[in-house]
Amino acid sequence: MNVVHKYGGTSVATIEKINQVADRVAEIKKAGNNIAVVASAMGKTTDRLIEMAKAISPSPSKRELDSLMSTGEQTTVTLLAMALQARGVEAVSLTGFQCGFLTDEFHSQATILDIDSRRLEDIIARGAVPVITGFQGISRSGDITTLGRGGSDTTAVAVAAKLGWDCEIYTDVDGVYTIDPRRCPKARKLDVITSDEMMELAALGAGVLETRSVEIAKKYGVRLFLGRSMEKDKTKGTYVVNDYFEDMAVTGIGVIEDCAMISVKCPFEKGTVSRVFSKIADMNINIDMISQQLLDDKTALLSFSCTKESAEELEAARGESVFDGCDMRYGLSKISLVGAGMATHSGVAAKALATLFENGIDHYQITTSEISISVTVDKENLQKACDALTKAFELCEE
Amino acid sequence: MNVVHKYGGTSVATIEKINQVADRVAEIKKAGNNIAVVASAMGKTTDRLIEMAKAISPSPSKRELDSLMSTGEQTTVTLLAMALQARGVEAVSLTGFQCGFLTDEFHSQATILDIDSRRLEDIIARGAVPVITGFQGISRSGDITTLGRGGSDTTAVAVAAKLGWDCEIYTDVDGVYTIDPRRCPKARKLDVITSDEMMELAALGAGVLETRSVEIAKKYGVRLFLGRSMEKDKTKGTYVVNDYFEDMAVTGIGVIEDCAMISVKCPFEKGTVSRVFSKIADMNINIDMISQQLLDDKTALLSFSCTKESAEELEAARGESVFDGCDMRYGLSKISLVGAGMATHSGVAAKALATLFENGIDHYQITTSEISISVTVDKENLQKACDALTKAFELCEE
Repeated sequence: MNVVHKYGGTSVATIEKINQVADRVAEIKKAGNNIAVVASAMGKTTDRLIEMAKAISPSPSKRELDSLMSTGEQTTVTLLAMALQARGVEAVSLTGFQCGFLTDEFHSQATILDIDSRRLEDIIARGAVPVITGFQGISRSGDITTLGRGGSDTTAVAVAAKLGWDCEIYTDVDGVYTIDPRRCPKARKLDVITSDEMMELAALGAGVLETRSVEIAKKYGVRLFLGRSMEKDKTKGTYVVNDYFEDMAVTGIGVIEDCAMISVKCPFEKGTVSRVFSKIADMNINIDMISQQLLDDKTALLSFSCTKESAEELEAARGESVFDGCDMRYGLSKISLVGAGMATHSGVAAKALATLFENGIDHYQITTSEISISVTVDKENLQKACDALTKAFELCEE
Repeated sequence: MNVVHKYGGTSVATIEKINQVADRVAEIKKAGNNIAVVASAMGKTTDRLIEMAKAISPSPSKRELDSLMSTGEQTTVTLLAMALQARGVEAVSLTGFQCGFLTDEFHSQATILDIDSRRLEDIIARGAVPVITGFQGISRSGDITTLGRGGSDTTAVAVAAKLGWDCEIYTDVDGVYTIDPRRCPKARKLDVITSDEMMELAALGAGVLETRSVEIAKKYGVRLFLGRSMEKDKTKGTYVVNDYFEDMAVTGIGVIEDCAMISVKCPFEKGTVSRVFSKIADMNINIDMISQQLLDDKTALLSFSCTKESAEELEAARGESVFDGCDMRYGLSKISLVGAGMATHSGVAAKALATLFENGIDHYQITTSEISISVTVDKENLQKACDALTKAFELCEE
C-alpha cells in the first residue's frame, strides 16, 4: 500500500495524541507499506497565533500572518517526526518549502503552482517517512504562503496526486454526513459520496473536507477516504468516489450560517459590470449566487453573496466609484441541497420550496447548478429549515 | 546612523515588550536612520519547545529539534514586523533562509558559511526595516539549522559585518560586569572592554555575549555595544573596543559553574592521542584545559575539561576503544581571570593562587592563555573563591 495520511488539528492536539498518531503510522510503515504524513497545527494553535497578531495590530499584514501561522504546522511535524524516530521509524519533517510546494503570491489563500518533489521522493526512496506541514508553501520570491484554512487537506491530496498514492484524511468526525450532525443530530453518515457532490457540499458549507482537495483528487484520480482518527475500520468512514452506480436526487445538505448579499446598481455603460467583477477579483474575494436583473432602462441590478468577512472588506472599499450605490445585507444563511441525481430527478426545487413555504420560512435568492440548489433564508429560520428539509428528503436516521 | 539592534528573549517576552521594542525601532527609523533588527524567541519559548520534544522522545534528532526551535524566533519576528507596520514603518520579517544564512550541517551548533544578503539589501534599499530571526540558518541540503544557544548575538553581528553597520545588543543586563552580579552583587559595570577580553570572558563563562559574535565583530571591525533593553543612555552600557589606551591586569572574572574533567590513559602507540581528539571532534564536542603528562614510560595521561553534558555524552561513548581507561570527574567549577594587561603585569597567577590558598580553597588544573588564567575548584568552594578574588583584584565597588 502507498498512502498519504492527513491528521487534522484535533488529531494532534496534545503530545499524547501525537504519540497515538505515531503508533499508527509506525504500525503501517513496519507492515511494509509506504506512507507519508501531512499534519495540521496542534489544536487551537492557529487561533492562538492569530490572537497574538491581532493583539499587536488591528490589521496585520498577510505576509507576516502567513509566516507566523506556518510555525504551527512546523511544530507538529517536527514533534511527530521525533515520535516516529523514537519508535524506530526513520522520519524526516518537511516544511512547505522543503517539500517543494511552490505557490502564487496570494498570502492567506495561495494556490499551489507546482510541487518540486525531488527531496520528498529521495526520502521515500530510502525508506523513510516524510512528515509534511499542511497548509503552506513558498512563493517564487521566497515568502512563506498559506493555502487558507483547511488547506492541509489540499496539501495531503496534492502530495498523493504527485506520488500517485491513495489519500486518507483523518479528523474528529466519522465521515461525511447528509448534514452537519451538530446541526441535525439524526443526520446519516454516507459510506460513499461522489467527488462532484463532495466538492459542491464543501463549497456550500460542509466543513469536513476542503473543495480544492476534492477537486485535485478528482483531477488526478486520487482514491480519497475520510475517517475518524485512530479508527481502523474503513466501513466507518466515507469514500469519495468518481461515480455512483445510481445517483441519488439529494445526497446531503450544506449550510453556510453567516452570509451576506450585496447588490450594486450598475448604470448601462460599457464595462461597468465587468469593472465591478475585476475589482472584486483584485481584492481576491470569492463571491457566488451571482444574478443580474434590470432595474430600469438605464440601470442593471447586480447581486451576489459572499462571506460576512468579505462583505465587510467590500464595504470598506465602498469609496471606490465602482461600488456607488452598493447595498449590503447581513444576517442571512444559505442552505444548499446537493445530489448528483438532481439533473435526472425532477421536482427537487419544487419540493424544497414547498417544504420551506409549508413551514412559513421566507427565502430570498435562489441559484442552481447541475447538482445543487441553494437558497438564502433569514438566519433565525435556519434550524427550522434544516430540520424540515432533512425530513422531506429522507436524510436522517429512522 | 546605520545600526543592527539585537533583542534577546527577555526583551521580547510579551506582546507589551514587543510593542516597546517596536516603539524604539520606529523612533530610530523615523529619525532618518537605517536599522535592522535581530530578535530571539519570546521569553521561555525555546525551553518550552525543548520540553515538548523531550516529552515525545528522550533523544530527539537534532535536525528535528532545530526545525522545531526555529519556530520560536519566527514567531517573534513576524509579530515585531506587524508591530512596526502598525506604527507606519515598513518592515519585513526574514527567517534564517530568507535572510540567506547558509550554514554547515552541524545541527544545534551550526557555523555560518556565508550570507547571501541580496534580499536583505533589497529590503534596506527600499527603506524598509528587516526583522531577522536570530540563531538560525539553512544548510546546503535545505535543512533548518541553529547556531547554538546565544546564537542570536552571532546573527546580529554577522548581519552588521555583512552590511558594514554598527551592532547594538540589547538584553536584560546593563552591560558587561567584572563578574556576574548575580554571583557578586558588588561587581562593577565596565564602560569598555577589549574584544579579546570579551571573547575570553564569554568563552570562560560570562553569559552576557557569545564568543563567536565578539570574534566576528573583531574580525570585521564591527562597533559593538551591549546595553539594557529600553535604556537610551549609552554611558550605561558597555562598548567592546579593539584596544585600551592602557591595559588592566585583570578586567573581569568568568565562571563556569558546572564542568567536568576527563582523564584518559593513552598507551604510547603512534596516533593514540590523535585518535582521542579525532573522536571528540567527530562528536562535535568542545573541550579545553587540555594537558598531557607522563604516567609511566608506556603511558601518557591526557586530561581536559568540558561541560557536564559533553562529559555525559563522552561517558556514553565509553565503549569505544579509544576511551579505554577514561576517568570522569564531575562537581567542579572553573574560575578564569581575564585581562589584556596580564601579559605585561607580572604576578597575577601568583596573587590568584595565594588568594585561594589564604582562603583554604584547593585548586586542581591550571591553564593560562596570553590574557587569562583559569583554575578548577570544587563547586562548593566557588562562591568563596569568587568573593576572595574579586576583592583581591579590586573588581568590586567601594
